[in-house]
Amino acid sequence: MSEQFEMVPGNSLITKTPEEGRQLAVKMARLVIKATQPDSAIREKLRPIYSEDAAMLISVGQVVATEFATIAAANNYWR
Amino acid sequence: MSEQFEMVPGNSLITKTPEEGRQLAVKMARLVIKATQPDSAIREKLRPIYSEDAAMLISVGQVVATEFATIAAANNYWR
Amino acid sequence: MSEQFEMVPGNSLITKTPEEGRQLAVKMARLVIKATQPDSAIREKLRPIYSEDAAMLISVGQVVATEFATIAAANNYWR
Amino acid sequence: MSEQFEMVPGNSLITKTPEEGRQLAVKMARLVIKATQPDSAIREKLRPIYSEDAAMLISVGQVVATEFATIAAANNYWR
Amino acid sequence: MSEQFEMVPGNSLITKTPEEGRQLAVKMARLVIKATQPDSAIREKLRPIYSEDAAMLISVGQVVATEFATIAAANNYWR
Amino acid sequence: MSEQFEMVPGNSLITKTPEEGRQLAVKMARLVIKATQPDSAIREKLRPIYSEDAAMLISVGQVVATEFATIAAANNYWR
Repeated sequence: MSEQFEMVPGNSLITKTPEEGRQLAVKMARLVIKATQPDSAIREKLRPIYSEDAAMLISVGQVVATEFATIAAANNYWR
Repeated sequence: MSEQFEMVPGNSLITKTPEEGRQLAVKMARLVIKATQPDSAIREKLRPIYSEDAAMLISVGQVVATEFATIAAANNYWR
Repeated sequence: MSEQFEMVPGNSLITKTPEEGRQLAVKMARLVIKATQPDSAIREKLRPIYSEDAAMLISVGQVVATEFATIAAANNYWR
Repeated sequence: MSEQFEMVPGNSLITKTPEEGRQLAVKMARLVIKATQPDSAIREKLRPIYSEDAAMLISVGQVVATEFATIAAANNYWR
Repeated sequence: MSEQFEMVPGNSLITKTPEEGRQLAVKMARLVIKATQPDSAIREKLRPIYSEDAAMLISVGQVVATEFATIAAANNYWR
Repeated sequence: MSEQFEMVPGNSLITKTPEEGRQLAVKMARLVIKATQPDSAIREKLRPIYSEDAAMLISVGQVVATEFATIAAANNYWR
């Protein structure tokens, strides 16, 4: 795995708003895939596969929900 | 990913009731799919696929349950 | 999605007993499926598919376990 | 769903030991399957299917782990 | 299910170190499989199936991560 | 399982930063696979399989998200 890129953008889970927290969750989910498959050409080839497959889109949703749970707790749910 | 639409409607996890919290969970789950597949024509094509497939419907339920767990905690479970 | 029916029966996560909490978890899991597939004829057609498939029954168990975790926390585990 | 049987044996998440908590987790996982597929003849037919399939055994493990997390929290981890 | 063997080795979630906690997570994940499939001959036959299958190895990782989350919380994260 | 290698590098969940916590999550996820499949030749053969498969990459993301949740809580979310 290449670890030469940031896996947690900004190196912090703290965001100003839930919206920014959600976007961080999406980015963190993608960066794990980048770390596991560093070859951007292969990633580009895989993108239409999962983005046009209903089951995989749901699975992406599951990962983002899990990342977001952590980020939301870190931010005390922006209460 | 297009991030030109809100991923957290209202930019808050706080809702008045569990019912509203549940509806927010459903919306947030859908908006991740929209972010991952911004082409509405493709999403429309995928909709009957997952909504008529027992396994995928269960997976949708899993995502919503995960989103709802976060929203419920944010609202201190509406106790 | 039709949102004309309650997704959280009683609009509360609070139950008198763990048993009632468990039944609420099962109902909430089903109501997400109803929200995603509002056509009762299609749902009836899908029911024997998942209820006679070992892998899908296990997945249903996963969803219920996740919903129950939230309900149990809401009720401070009925301690 | 038949709800004529207990879904939470003893109607409590509190157990004396982690071992008993683990056994409760296994039972609760099974009772959801029973609630979803009340026909014992069908359940008996499905049992060898999942108990001789590596992927399904792992999925059963996932459900039990999730149920156990809730039970362990309820018992303050038997500290 | 045979319940004649311990499902929680040592009947405690408390360990001295994160490393021991991780090993306990692995053992607990395996013991659920043993409880669901008590026949050691069948388990031996299944072992090469999941240990040489990329998807199943990832699923094993998911179960262990879930068990470890509980054990880590029980130990207050060994802080 | 060979338990002759560390499953929790540094035998601690505490890290200086979220970025280091994320890298620990990735490593811990991999070490479970190593524990389950100790033969490095087989692991090398499996690597291109999951790293070029969209569904499996998403599943890897799910495992890492779960491990990270634990690590983030251990570090009080690096607030």
